[in-house]
Amino acid sequence: MTMDGPSPHTTLPFAPSHIARADLTARFLAVRRQTEALAAPLDPEDQVVQSMADCSPTKWHLGHTTWFFERFVLMSFLPGYRPFDPGFDHLFNSYYVSLGSRHPRPQRGLLTRPPLARVLAWRDSVTHAVTGLLDPADAGLRARIDPLIETGVHHEQQHQELLLMDVLHLFSCNPLRPAYLPADIMDSAATMAVASKPQAPGWIDHDGGIHAIGHDPAAGDADDFAYDNEGPRHDVLLRPFRLANRPVTNGDWLEFIAEDGYGRAEFWLSDGIAETQAQGWTAPLYWFRPEEDGLWWTMSLRGPEPVDLDAPVVHVSQYEADAFARFRGCRLPTEAEWEVVAAQAPVAGNLLPRGALRPMPAGTTTPSPAQIYGDVWEWTSSAYGPYPGFKPPVGAIGEYNGKFMANQMVLRGGCCVTPGDHIRPSYRNFFYPRQRWAFSGLRLATDA
Amino acid sequence: MTMDGPSPHTTLPFAPSHIARADLTARFLAVRRQTEALAAPLDPEDQVVQSMADCSPTKWHLGHTTWFFERFVLMSFLPGYRPFDPGFDHLFNSYYVSLGSRHPRPQRGLLTRPPLARVLAWRDSVTHAVTGLLDPADAGLRARIDPLIETGVHHEQQHQELLLMDVLHLFSCNPLRPAYLPADIMDSAATMAVASKPQAPGWIDHDGGIHAIGHDPAAGDADDFAYDNEGPRHDVLLRPFRLANRPVTNGDWLEFIAEDGYGRAEFWLSDGIAETQAQGWTAPLYWFRPEEDGLWWTMSLRGPEPVDLDAPVVHVSQYEADAFARFRGCRLPTEAEWEVVAAQAPVAGNLLPRGALRPMPAGTTTPSPAQIYGDVWEWTSSAYGPYPGFKPPVGAIGEYNGKFMANQMVLRGGCCVTPGDHIRPSYRNFFYPRQRWAFSGLRLATDA
Amino acid sequence: MTMDGPSPHTTLPFAPSHIARADLTARFLAVRRQTEALAAPLDPEDQVVQSMADCSPTKWHLGHTTWFFERFVLMSFLPGYRPFDPGFDHLFNSYYVSLGSRHPRPQRGLLTRPPLARVLAWRDSVTHAVTGLLDPADAGLRARIDPLIETGVHHEQQHQELLLMDVLHLFSCNPLRPAYLPADIMDSAATMAVASKPQAPGWIDHDGGIHAIGHDPAAGDADDFAYDNEGPRHDVLLRPFRLANRPVTNGDWLEFIAEDGYGRAEFWLSDGIAETQAQGWTAPLYWFRPEEDGLWWTMSLRGPEPVDLDAPVVHVSQYEADAFARFRGCRLPTEAEWEVVAAQAPVAGNLLPRGALRPMPAGTTTPSPAQIYGDVWEWTSSAYGPYPGFKPPVGAIGEYNGKFMANQMVLRGGCCVTPGDHIRPSYRNFFYPRQRWAFSGLRLATDA
Amino acid sequence: MTMDGPSPHTTLPFAPSHIARADLTARFLAVRRQTEALAAPLDPEDQVVQSMADCSPTKWHLGHTTWFFERFVLMSFLPGYRPFDPGFDHLFNSYYVSLGSRHPRPQRGLLTRPPLARVLAWRDSVTHAVTGLLDPADAGLRARIDPLIETGVHHEQQHQELLLMDVLHLFSCNPLRPAYLPADIMDSAATMAVASKPQAPGWIDHDGGIHAIGHDPAAGDADDFAYDNEGPRHDVLLRPFRLANRPVTNGDWLEFIAEDGYGRAEFWLSDGIAETQAQGWTAPLYWFRPEEDGLWWTMSLRGPEPVDLDAPVVHVSQYEADAFARFRGCRLPTEAEWEVVAAQAPVAGNLLPRGALRPMPAGTTTPSPAQIYGDVWEWTSSAYGPYPGFKPPVGAIGEYNGKFMANQMVLRGGCCVTPGDHIRPSYRNFFYPRQRWAFSGLRLATDA
Repeated sequence: MTMDGPSPHTTLPFAPSHIARADLTARFLAVRRQTEALAAPLDPEDQVVQSMADCSPTKWHLGHTTWFFERFVLMSFLPGYRPFDPGFDHLFNSYYVSLGSRHPRPQRGLLTRPPLARVLAWRDSVTHAVTGLLDPADAGLRARIDPLIETGVHHEQQHQELLLMDVLHLFSCNPLRPAYLPADIMDSAATMAVASKPQAPGWIDHDGGIHAIGHDPAAGDADDFAYDNEGPRHDVLLRPFRLANRPVTNGDWLEFIAEDGYGRAEFWLSDGIAETQAQGWTAPLYWFRPEEDGLWWTMSLRGPEPVDLDAPVVHVSQYEADAFARFRGCRLPTEAEWEVVAAQAPVAGNLLPRGALRPMPAGTTTPSPAQIYGDVWEWTSSAYGPYPGFKPPVGAIGEYNGKFMANQMVLRGGCCVTPGDHIRPSYRNFFYPRQRWAFSGLRLATDA
Repeated sequence: MTMDGPSPHTTLPFAPSHIARADLTARFLAVRRQTEALAAPLDPEDQVVQSMADCSPTKWHLGHTTWFFERFVLMSFLPGYRPFDPGFDHLFNSYYVSLGSRHPRPQRGLLTRPPLARVLAWRDSVTHAVTGLLDPADAGLRARIDPLIETGVHHEQQHQELLLMDVLHLFSCNPLRPAYLPADIMDSAATMAVASKPQAPGWIDHDGGIHAIGHDPAAGDADDFAYDNEGPRHDVLLRPFRLANRPVTNGDWLEFIAEDGYGRAEFWLSDGIAETQAQGWTAPLYWFRPEEDGLWWTMSLRGPEPVDLDAPVVHVSQYEADAFARFRGCRLPTEAEWEVVAAQAPVAGNLLPRGALRPMPAGTTTPSPAQIYGDVWEWTSSAYGPYPGFKPPVGAIGEYNGKFMANQMVLRGGCCVTPGDHIRPSYRNFFYPRQRWAFSGLRLATDA
Repeated sequence: MTMDGPSPHTTLPFAPSHIARADLTARFLAVRRQTEALAAPLDPEDQVVQSMADCSPTKWHLGHTTWFFERFVLMSFLPGYRPFDPGFDHLFNSYYVSLGSRHPRPQRGLLTRPPLARVLAWRDSVTHAVTGLLDPADAGLRARIDPLIETGVHHEQQHQELLLMDVLHLFSCNPLRPAYLPADIMDSAATMAVASKPQAPGWIDHDGGIHAIGHDPAAGDADDFAYDNEGPRHDVLLRPFRLANRPVTNGDWLEFIAEDGYGRAEFWLSDGIAETQAQGWTAPLYWFRPEEDGLWWTMSLRGPEPVDLDAPVVHVSQYEADAFARFRGCRLPTEAEWEVVAAQAPVAGNLLPRGALRPMPAGTTTPSPAQIYGDVWEWTSSAYGPYPGFKPPVGAIGEYNGKFMANQMVLRGGCCVTPGDHIRPSYRNFFYPRQRWAFSGLRLATDA
Repeated sequence: MTMDGPSPHTTLPFAPSHIARADLTARFLAVRRQTEALAAPLDPEDQVVQSMADCSPTKWHLGHTTWFFERFVLMSFLPGYRPFDPGFDHLFNSYYVSLGSRHPRPQRGLLTRPPLARVLAWRDSVTHAVTGLLDPADAGLRARIDPLIETGVHHEQQHQELLLMDVLHLFSCNPLRPAYLPADIMDSAATMAVASKPQAPGWIDHDGGIHAIGHDPAAGDADDFAYDNEGPRHDVLLRPFRLANRPVTNGDWLEFIAEDGYGRAEFWLSDGIAETQAQGWTAPLYWFRPEEDGLWWTMSLRGPEPVDLDAPVVHVSQYEADAFARFRGCRLPTEAEWEVVAAQAPVAGNLLPRGALRPMPAGTTTPSPAQIYGDVWEWTSSAYGPYPGFKPPVGAIGEYNGKFMANQMVLRGGCCVTPGDHIRPSYRNFFYPRQRWAFSGLRLATDA
């Protein structure tokens, strides 16, 4: 019987992937299985509920990522294919207006039917049918469907991260504060979690000048994937600047709280302090202070944990990040500044495969810039907009990114729940500056 | 595997109860089992979701009715009893302010934990412990706990009706329009559902005068239960009036729609038409008209069904009921008028044990007043307030009814999902005039 | 030049009226002039603004009461009459749906045009034209228009009270806390405002029984006016009860505050405490406590004044009144209980003609029941609904009262800003239980 | 007596200013008088009302611009100066958190006191006191206060434009559709309003490259003013692009409407179509189509007028502007693209001194780029953020611009109600993309 605590799992639901990029079929299957593995520790009841309009139920993530392959691949390229269930198109379309009607987003949590078991059956069916299409011998077909499969794989990886974000939010609303996975399982995996001090704060200097940013399809690796919004690659003109050698930590944030950072208007954008006051923010999302001990705790995927002073601060809005930077006499970096530094660093870090499922302190020997990939997404000062020359693809797939280029801000670098091969220097994540349920933190910058 | 449709049940989850009122233990056990039987056709996923703030998840109903017995009986009268789970008190207290903190009502649907299985285990444990207390030999104890058990039994019956109301609302929000039970099972039970015309409309004349209404504890049947709000029994002074011999039917309502009843302000209370326009009401709740056939259908616990012109209209607000009455040159009855007529009729009708789960046409041979009990709750023109001399009991149990005596209107007579022995002439149900998810209809009245 | 303070008035804008009821023309003219006199202390700027949706600008009151006579009298009975301005019908119709389109109520404060001067010119024009119609010799015409004039006169008196309520609310929103009239002018008029203790609390006993309430058109005085909602006169059956000999005072209310009455749920209706918490109520409307002295002050039509402990409490919602009554182990009276007692008392008290413009302490020698008319409207426990046999008049005038018979509660007795001949034992005022900007207080009752 | 129409003015309330930039005293006095002249056609009633939270009453603009000089100049530099009224500091501070408490912005329209006459007296007093400080002989003082006077002058010019925007919005809410000024007066001034075709559409090509933008304090004219947000001047790297030779016209916009531009999601940003649907937008703000003729009219400062097909479209949100550009296969320019083109053009056009008070058709002989200054502010695709190296000034004056650098979009070029010397190539105006009450239009761009 399932009890209050997490289900008894003896192994982590994720593992590093060592599949060659060229083997698209293997990657497709691995990603499909990974999503299911991420859902496995959850009861069916956990998978149906939507805790706020920004979130989606796990079951919906399982269905929507399946809808993507059925709609964009099977319906177009598998002759005679009939949908598994004709009602699902309406239920699991997210926002593709050009593809017809959609179930309203804030009501995704009302879909107790189809039951989870049926969605899983749909998944199996679609996974099987897509695999059948991936015939190595049919080069003509593959040339047409491989880009869609590739996009679908990355799309599903985005939803893996969203799934974990949404589960954490859901569990944070429950006074029982359930854990997604028990701490002991996670600790055995995340062995680097030994007490470890963060790097001493320092700066990385950059001389500025003209540099190219954005995805470079001609960089040699032909199957290297990027979203449309990461291009065109283009030159930017930078002034000399400095970027912090590590993200802002929880310890740093406690100083901000201690010095009444949330109450002092001089640090805040006007919209930021208005939101802060309207929401009553006095600490990052998920922090709480039990009456009995007065210490700060946070809700995590491992359940409640004491705030680790040496780990990067996480679940702060861009407004809070911006205010913190002013508090320190600094600013947030632009996305171009971030990218020209990050492009020099290896793409590795505390990402989903490591299994920590939360930001961790960097070791003192971590090379600089520490934690530029993984741990926390880093807010930038850049509004999410089109790069010069950007044109979204024609058709429904063109709705993927471009239409969201308003009112959102760019984050960079991936986080502790980002799939391991789903991050790269040019990757542009984006959220509204008021949103906090992503694993969002920050790294300081200043003019040189 | 559970599919989209309802789970395969071969028998109805409810049956007429023929347990002697005097056998409290048997009634307690039967009611506990009945609640579980009502939940049984639902998947665990169906039982966790809350489709609007007025509704509660099935799992919450299962837990809250258990909390009632644990909190009011076991904690007070079972020496050494320790709560099954100390966290449940906070989660499953509904509104008893004097008993401590409560989980916010609109967030009941976020409680994916404790899982259903654990709530069912709690139910078993509490049912068992309460049964153990009901020792026929301990007259002293019984004198103290029997009134609480009796209240708890009736309280749980109320939640049985709420459970079905809430399931219907939940399923009505799902584009797949699931059925709570398949029509074939229900039809085999509800054999009176053969095509049957409603009674011809007519009036029951009443001469008015001084009459007593309200529950009469001295009426001879000592164990006859009533809620506090049904008393004190008191005299009322009535003028001569007429009460319709049957409820308003769907066929009647179609005339109201056809004559633009929803659009003509002259029929409406000012608050009523404001609500109607704000909500965009053009028909009773759950009615819809598919584009392909132009006919009115309604969502029911059997899934979607064509509107039955001969059945009583249901799921209308008091505002709509009042406007319909004016449209007909009539008015709604007062609760006193209703009661003096209903007191003369046998307490029987299309209630939960019949298994129809929806209002049915009355046969042409139904004695008058037809359907005064069962089928649909009948809105009155009476604001829900205290009877002269009403005093709520001391303590938490006093929060049961009295504190809701503001802004709500009285309904009378029970409906097709009201447990069979949970209705009586003096029973006062109450909802806000804007609410429609109860099985609420109306019966016309006029001055004589 | 007009300064911040009130305009220099040397006389009060109102005086007792001693016009015979039979002289309708004289009463019509006096009421028209009275409304203009009430507006005179205000700047044009004061007269255009609407401080909340429940309120209307003074200019709108001036126009709407004029529209009433133009629309119901001149348009129907003055041959060849053409409206002063055809656009005004839309702007100054309040809620008569059957008379065509209306300017939305919450936007009345946007009507900077027509300017005040033009509305006053309209007033003069309509007053003159109506006066011309009131030919004593044309008995046939008079028989048809006199009832409309009579209704219009009383309608305008209602708006005189609303005008003062709305001005007080507007000025309460201004940090400068302006006075409608300077205290010295008002004090010279309200000479009874000498320090005076309230009557010692006591009870008036009533034996109950069958009594007639409601307006009695056959009572002899043929021209005695009443609104439709005050009839039909009908018998009610009362149980023995007691009514307090005076209203609840500010001093009483301070005890409620001191004993945390606003925070103790046991005194409150469920809707009442929800509203209280949502609005953050901790004292009557307009009370404030300056940091420098810690004493309670209140905003009044004389500007800010210290709360007078011996005066009746005013500007409380029905929820607060109900909670206070429970705090005292009492209840609010029903409107029938109130009326049978009040019908024995002379209709006199601290009404508008006295010029106090605020509730005053009753003298110790005031006969009992003290202050049953005037000072403060007294909340009852009666929902505002139709009396048995009530039928609204046919046509637009039928929208006057009946359509508001939902969700509101009855208040009785008039207040310090009620015109002197605008109150009577059967008069039913009504507001939503959450509303506080009327001059609303309470008088306790209990079962005998 | 003031009638419904505008007050009888025989001259325009504004005239071209030919005061030398160097004569700061003369400019200060001229700007103060200009603000008063702009308010003069309005009744006191018109000047007190606030028609939406984004707007302010005219009286508030008159007071706030006075508060600026009293607070920043007189209080700091005039020894012994005591405020005209100590309560005004709270009432007329707009958003300077560091200067103390402020009256809530959405309640500015409740301030019927102080009356207009008193605010005008305050204006005179402050104008006089500031003038007295501007002693040409006291070079030391002048060095400190001249920058504040200069900022105050430009601040007041901004409020002149806001005043007219707000008056238009207020009058648009009135069913009487009043005119700010009668058309005949305005026509006699705006003699260029003869029927005139817009320029044929065409493009201005630009080769891109590295260019400097932003205010250049070293450009030779030492007293050339700019706001802090216009600097630092810095290089930008542009790709080749094309900018339209004229703004989009109403005729162009009618094509967008005719081709269902408001309904076709493919043209819209996701946030844009959500806002459009939530607000029910189907045309620019102030457009309306009377039932009797079916033609589009618009509300203007001259009262209602037929939409002029050849004039630039105005009062569109950035969302609409962006959607229109996509409809045409184009995009909005960046602010850098706009500036490098505009910097080559003379700073002249249909600005406030011309007296047209609405966008006008450009003559066919207008040099290209037509109307780059004046007529309508042009939305860009640039989020309003800090230029590289931007640091706000220390102290309260630093709240002027920087804290609004979130969620807003840049507009360029000035409009028909912008004071004549209040525009320059580097001027950055900013509004939320949803806002429409500014005189905002657009000019298309494309990649070369």
